[in-house]
Amino acid sequence: MSVAESDLRLPPPLVEKAVGEALAEDWGEAGDITTVATITPDATASGAIVARKPGVVAGLQVAEAAFRALDENVSFKVLIRDGERVEAGQKIARVAGNARALLTAERVALNFLGHMSGIATLTRTYVEKISGTRAKIIDTRKTTPGLRIFEKLAVRAGGGLNHRFGLFDAILIKDNHIIAAGGIGAALNKARERAGHVVKVEIEVATLEQLSEALAHNAEAVLLDNMPVATLKEAVAEVAGRAITEASGGVSLETVRGIAETGVDLISVGALTHSAPVLDIGLDFDQGR
Amino acid sequence: MSVAESDLRLPPPLVEKAVGEALAEDWGEAGDITTVATITPDATASGAIVARKPGVVAGLQVAEAAFRALDENVSFKVLIRDGERVEAGQKIARVAGNARALLTAERVALNFLGHMSGIATLTRTYVEKISGTRAKIIDTRKTTPGLRIFEKLAVRAGGGLNHRFGLFDAILIKDNHIIAAGGIGAALNKARERAGHVVKVEIEVATLEQLSEALAHNAEAVLLDNMPVATLKEAVAEVAGRAITEASGGVSLETVRGIAETGVDLISVGALTHSAPVLDIGLDFDQGR
Amino acid sequence: MSVAESDLRLPPPLVEKAVGEALAEDWGEAGDITTVATITPDATASGAIVARKPGVVAGLQVAEAAFRALDENVSFKVLIRDGERVEAGQKIARVAGNARALLTAERVALNFLGHMSGIATLTRTYVEKISGTRAKIIDTRKTTPGLRIFEKLAVRAGGGLNHRFGLFDAILIKDNHIIAAGGIGAALNKARERAGHVVKVEIEVATLEQLSEALAHNAEAVLLDNMPVATLKEAVAEVAGRAITEASGGVSLETVRGIAETGVDLISVGALTHSAPVLDIGLDFDQGR
Amino acid sequence: MSVAESDLRLPPPLVEKAVGEALAEDWGEAGDITTVATITPDATASGAIVARKPGVVAGLQVAEAAFRALDENVSFKVLIRDGERVEAGQKIARVAGNARALLTAERVALNFLGHMSGIATLTRTYVEKISGTRAKIIDTRKTTPGLRIFEKLAVRAGGGLNHRFGLFDAILIKDNHIIAAGGIGAALNKARERAGHVVKVEIEVATLEQLSEALAHNAEAVLLDNMPVATLKEAVAEVAGRAITEASGGVSLETVRGIAETGVDLISVGALTHSAPVLDIGLDFDQGR
Amino acid sequence: MSVAESDLRLPPPLVEKAVGEALAEDWGEAGDITTVATITPDATASGAIVARKPGVVAGLQVAEAAFRALDENVSFKVLIRDGERVEAGQKIARVAGNARALLTAERVALNFLGHMSGIATLTRTYVEKISGTRAKIIDTRKTTPGLRIFEKLAVRAGGGLNHRFGLFDAILIKDNHIIAAGGIGAALNKARERAGHVVKVEIEVATLEQLSEALAHNAEAVLLDNMPVATLKEAVAEVAGRAITEASGGVSLETVRGIAETGVDLISVGALTHSAPVLDIGLDFDQGR
Amino acid sequence: MSVAESDLRLPPPLVEKAVGEALAEDWGEAGDITTVATITPDATASGAIVARKPGVVAGLQVAEAAFRALDENVSFKVLIRDGERVEAGQKIARVAGNARALLTAERVALNFLGHMSGIATLTRTYVEKISGTRAKIIDTRKTTPGLRIFEKLAVRAGGGLNHRFGLFDAILIKDNHIIAAGGIGAALNKARERAGHVVKVEIEVATLEQLSEALAHNAEAVLLDNMPVATLKEAVAEVAGRAITEASGGVSLETVRGIAETGVDLISVGALTHSAPVLDIGLDFDQGR
Repeated sequence: MSVAESDLRLPPPLVEKAVGEALAEDWGEAGDITTVATITPDATASGAIVARKPGVVAGLQVAEAAFRALDENVSFKVLIRDGERVEAGQKIARVAGNARALLTAERVALNFLGHMSGIATLTRTYVEKISGTRAKIIDTRKTTPGLRIFEKLAVRAGGGLNHRFGLFDAILIKDNHIIAAGGIGAALNKARERAGHVVKVEIEVATLEQLSEALAHNAEAVLLDNMPVATLKEAVAEVAGRAITEASGGVSLETVRGIAETGVDLISVGALTHSAPVLDIGLDFDQGR
Repeated sequence: MSVAESDLRLPPPLVEKAVGEALAEDWGEAGDITTVATITPDATASGAIVARKPGVVAGLQVAEAAFRALDENVSFKVLIRDGERVEAGQKIARVAGNARALLTAERVALNFLGHMSGIATLTRTYVEKISGTRAKIIDTRKTTPGLRIFEKLAVRAGGGLNHRFGLFDAILIKDNHIIAAGGIGAALNKARERAGHVVKVEIEVATLEQLSEALAHNAEAVLLDNMPVATLKEAVAEVAGRAITEASGGVSLETVRGIAETGVDLISVGALTHSAPVLDIGLDFDQGR
Repeated sequence: MSVAESDLRLPPPLVEKAVGEALAEDWGEAGDITTVATITPDATASGAIVARKPGVVAGLQVAEAAFRALDENVSFKVLIRDGERVEAGQKIARVAGNARALLTAERVALNFLGHMSGIATLTRTYVEKISGTRAKIIDTRKTTPGLRIFEKLAVRAGGGLNHRFGLFDAILIKDNHIIAAGGIGAALNKARERAGHVVKVEIEVATLEQLSEALAHNAEAVLLDNMPVATLKEAVAEVAGRAITEASGGVSLETVRGIAETGVDLISVGALTHSAPVLDIGLDFDQGR
Repeated sequence: MSVAESDLRLPPPLVEKAVGEALAEDWGEAGDITTVATITPDATASGAIVARKPGVVAGLQVAEAAFRALDENVSFKVLIRDGERVEAGQKIARVAGNARALLTAERVALNFLGHMSGIATLTRTYVEKISGTRAKIIDTRKTTPGLRIFEKLAVRAGGGLNHRFGLFDAILIKDNHIIAAGGIGAALNKARERAGHVVKVEIEVATLEQLSEALAHNAEAVLLDNMPVATLKEAVAEVAGRAITEASGGVSLETVRGIAETGVDLISVGALTHSAPVLDIGLDFDQGR
Repeated sequence: MSVAESDLRLPPPLVEKAVGEALAEDWGEAGDITTVATITPDATASGAIVARKPGVVAGLQVAEAAFRALDENVSFKVLIRDGERVEAGQKIARVAGNARALLTAERVALNFLGHMSGIATLTRTYVEKISGTRAKIIDTRKTTPGLRIFEKLAVRAGGGLNHRFGLFDAILIKDNHIIAAGGIGAALNKARERAGHVVKVEIEVATLEQLSEALAHNAEAVLLDNMPVATLKEAVAEVAGRAITEASGGVSLETVRGIAETGVDLISVGALTHSAPVLDIGLDFDQGR
Repeated sequence: MSVAESDLRLPPPLVEKAVGEALAEDWGEAGDITTVATITPDATASGAIVARKPGVVAGLQVAEAAFRALDENVSFKVLIRDGERVEAGQKIARVAGNARALLTAERVALNFLGHMSGIATLTRTYVEKISGTRAKIIDTRKTTPGLRIFEKLAVRAGGGLNHRFGLFDAILIKDNHIIAAGGIGAALNKARERAGHVVKVEIEVATLEQLSEALAHNAEAVLLDNMPVATLKEAVAEVAGRAITEASGGVSLETVRGIAETGVDLISVGALTHSAPVLDIGLDFDQGR
């Protein structure tokens, strides 16, 4: 998998902020009363972060930051990197340091790691389903509130691409915009007039008639919404390279290959970020210390 | 379903804070450039929030707050309340107000609503699987970072109960604590000595031997981890009412009824919050305005 | 005094946040104009943190953090630890580093240290008053807004125990709840039904009749409010070990021993956190440098 | 008492921020589990805020904001205003509204009100002790971290004046500055050179020799630290109106009148803010509703 | 001037946050001591916001929010709207309400209004200089830290367009990127491979040779950096519509028309946001009240 | 120039906060997509911060912090210090480290440095214009929202003095206060009565009559607003050392020397902070690496 490792690092302040908030959510005011009650403050421990199921790893930077937030001397040794496959029972990383820090940070670290690895794993499955076609798997803005940059990183770790990050970095005219703006032509004209010169204009169309109207008004990308495979094929032919084509809606592991074979450029899959089950990952302390 | 509506409201400031952060995540610095470009500032619109699939609703308070954050005069009329079932195609709520506000807030509102309703729906399925037994479905701390109070509300909407909210409101001694503390007895003794008088002490055990040791040290609740059904039955008999029993690990829709029939008090299911697929919910603007 | 040192450390991020906010309160926008005007930026200084009156120390972690926030190379040597007694004139710690940093942080460090040591000192006095009885001194939620975790730590340093940390970690049904809920039985029934399995239910009662009703509804702990000593004795006899007993209200240094001798488990004292005078502590710079 | 009411209001955003943080401290993540469990969401209640002991009221704006934060329709009727005396058993305010909101906000409201009224009460006692003299009672920077503006307001409610609000709004050269700067003359010269033209320079002196040196270097105010009454008298004579005189250190209710009679302009009392016991104030719900 | 009013409104929460922070910067901890000392709390006042010099107005939404933050009942009547010209001495708005609120908010309101109007005024001058050409005036990321969205709005009010809002919404490969990436071709190839499908790729070139290389690698927009007018003309001819052309560097009011006449699409001017002098605007209270 | 270097350092936490917010403004959610796309994560680079125009430097601490925020190992070598002159083309500092960090932080670092150096440069010009007179150049509260402490530092770097930092650290009664308070005498009396003993009272007067009234009421400083030079001379004679004199209004590089020669103590210049053009400063990467 040619996932560039450089795309899988986030600016440390963003990671530390998210980790700090998650730890605060878990501590509340009173802190980790179990650990304080049962573990002496200077005890040390070590253990392995282990996959219980096979999948693709994502989120190690965040997991490491969670442990480091509580003990800056924690050692965190990565064995399987973000974007790589892991088998059930395989160790992803080894961790060692202050026992209280490890225990208090464990759940936050694993919640991020499992969630992000779940997304990477599901993305990889989609990507492999369409291997050999020209289409790319791409995510959506249907992300979990507060976690978008982490989920979009996980999609990249899985081999997918990112659609826009928010409302701010692209113009995507959807059905409700068209209704409120008074039609496809009106919406595209207004958008092109106001759009910055570095921003492309994409529009959602549900029928071939709408597609023709969008192309007639110089849409730079078209989101082909919920079209049957046969219609998608016609749409791709109609576009004929004049715009980027994105298939969206009704995409599942069963349907994705058929969609890809229509020749579309992109297939956007909301499920990558809104419905991926967690990858089951645990922390096993070393015994016999 | 006797879900008390009063448990399904959150303090408004917490909701507004979460909604505000989610909107900021989506706006970035530049805002909703599509909507500003295509919709006039005074345009109004109305529409319905519609379930595309059947399920149980949760999160309406949050969805309403998202629209209200952008236009305090938005009208939001609830048709199906939190904790109630919705059929595919059925309208959950009607919304009307400033068109820009509706369009800009739409995704944040739906991301919360879909995520929370997905959790409520999965919880309801588990709850129904074990109907007639004495067991209760309960959640875990395996939640999405930053969203715990919303996810725990959704579990209640689905008919489940909440386990502790964080590290701060109960003592739950897990396997790694036992290792680091030097055994079950040591851990329970230390915990009981330090625990506040209003906090109960629960401990995770994986075998009947560990269970006996825990009971001998007056555990008030026992988490029976990953035990086969036959062992669970023996464990329940061994406990004989001296402690609350919680089955955990390896719980699925296939296995949950068998587990419930062993007589345990509680069955904790991490999947409720970490692996529930979204409930597909959309916003359909009214046409012909 | 068997105060476990491990209970007297707070997670560093919480300490740094509180210290940072207190420093910001003192700096305002313009900073320490006295120190900038009178001290050269590279000057160094050293000095001792000295108790002007006898007492029990608490808050050294916070004081150290205040100095460190302004000069991470400040040396801070603890001579008397949290939870230990100090005599008038005795040095608690020695500090050395950048002179501007020491001067600017001095007041914040001493404000925390004096406030927390004042609480520890008063707590110790109460604890010693009841030595030999089975009762424990415990704090309340009558804390100074924003400082609860620091004040609860100071209570532990003084040898007291902590009651619940907030509204979130225990159910304590008070007089106004009983009025609003429609009676003791109704309140207890509702509470038990909704309470998580790891949370105990405590209820406030003011008379023996109320106590009987509470016990009849399986209260797990009872707060005996403002009862005369004779009534307290009857109440303890009536409870007979079926619930934890907490005496509250009208507790002073004069009355506390009599209350303790009634056989109650806990005596809660709001004054520990809301009315403890500061322990007078100063910073004396070394002369002749 | 001619306390101007206009000095006893704070900008609403500052009050709301402090109240919001105090509520969050009390809610934690899980909220007020007692109230949610025992009170129906639409129940209403009313009651009186009642002084259990006599004193001077301060903090009603904050208390009202605490209730309003949870129910913007709460009615809050002030009966005794900030700066006015209250007798034991007298009602300070009446409150009515959503029962849950009242119960959840009660402790935060009372913690602020009791703390601030305690300060106002102690300040009033000092002020009355010196009535008829020309001296004024003034506070210090020995305040509780995070609460300075509230405590300084309470001092004004008690009839005292405020010294500087922080390090930023005046130059006060203290003993440690003098040591680090190399003497009184050096410190005053540097300070005067750098001080803004709207800022006065005050310096702490402990002896008459230091005082002479300070006056020789044009100190605009002198803090006479820990001087016996006889020395204070000499100091006032020496100053002879050339600078403002402030007595500080060793001030108690026993000593304050003697100090005032020396003719000093100001007497600063750290105890006003760091050692005032709370004024005992409760909330009594109306029965029989 | 056809400035669409709809582009000159910001989401209220963003405005309120910026205004709140600016007010806090001005209040510090101690607040507006002048106004509290001299004005009674219930006094009302009215006045006019008046331009002392001619210019183009921008920032009225922010100015209004500053007054409203302190008195939600302030009346604020706009006479000259954002994007419109104002003459020296002309009234821009009338304001009336609580006198303290008006006085305390005045400076923050005017600081925003003067700064933003200064930018709008300078932008308008540039825009008028090139009227009749096909070029558009566009801003840069050379903005004042913390104020970018306000400054970009002011540019629009002046009749200019906005370039990207930050590092996040477009790819603009600059000289230092080219050096670090190993050349124009390498940089463009990498950028195109990684860029989202809705993001355009722009590159900075300083010579016609670099321009050719950029076009050969399918740059979608080219920033022609610091080219003499003659070279710019050649560059525009060379591009021949294959990419958007942006002239940048060395643009002044003297040179801008010559640059525009070369046929470039866009002229970016850093001075709009980093060097526009304030438009002098004051608040005159009505006399004789 | 005798600018004390010690006045040109800010507390690191304030700098880091401002830098962090400016970086966040530039990153948005999606980060620096250009740099991530074109530069490998481990690439290093070096370069020089170079003045394109002559001026006075200010803001190096902030610029360094911007680079350090993204790579704590960045080397930053200052060649020209804050408060020193730089010629066009001269290197101000050298920087080396991770290439991505340098590229991503570049604009934030330069925006601060250029803005602050622009202010220092303009201040220096004013200061030199009045050399030999007794007057001092002083700033105002007409600063850019959010940047006051940085702009006031830049004024000091340019050789100017700072007026009050905000509403909180001095009493300055302006025209609108006088109107609302009912006259000069009333305003001064109220102010003196309420002002803390360490705060001076300054008042704005526009005529000699007002000046007389202000002096009669013991103003400690007078702001002589918009007076012609001849009137200023009369005013200075009238004051005769009884108060500090500050000339304000209509001050430009053309008029400032004449104003200074009237004998006023201070000349306040709003333009220093609200209208200083940026000093053009760039970052040139080293080639041939």
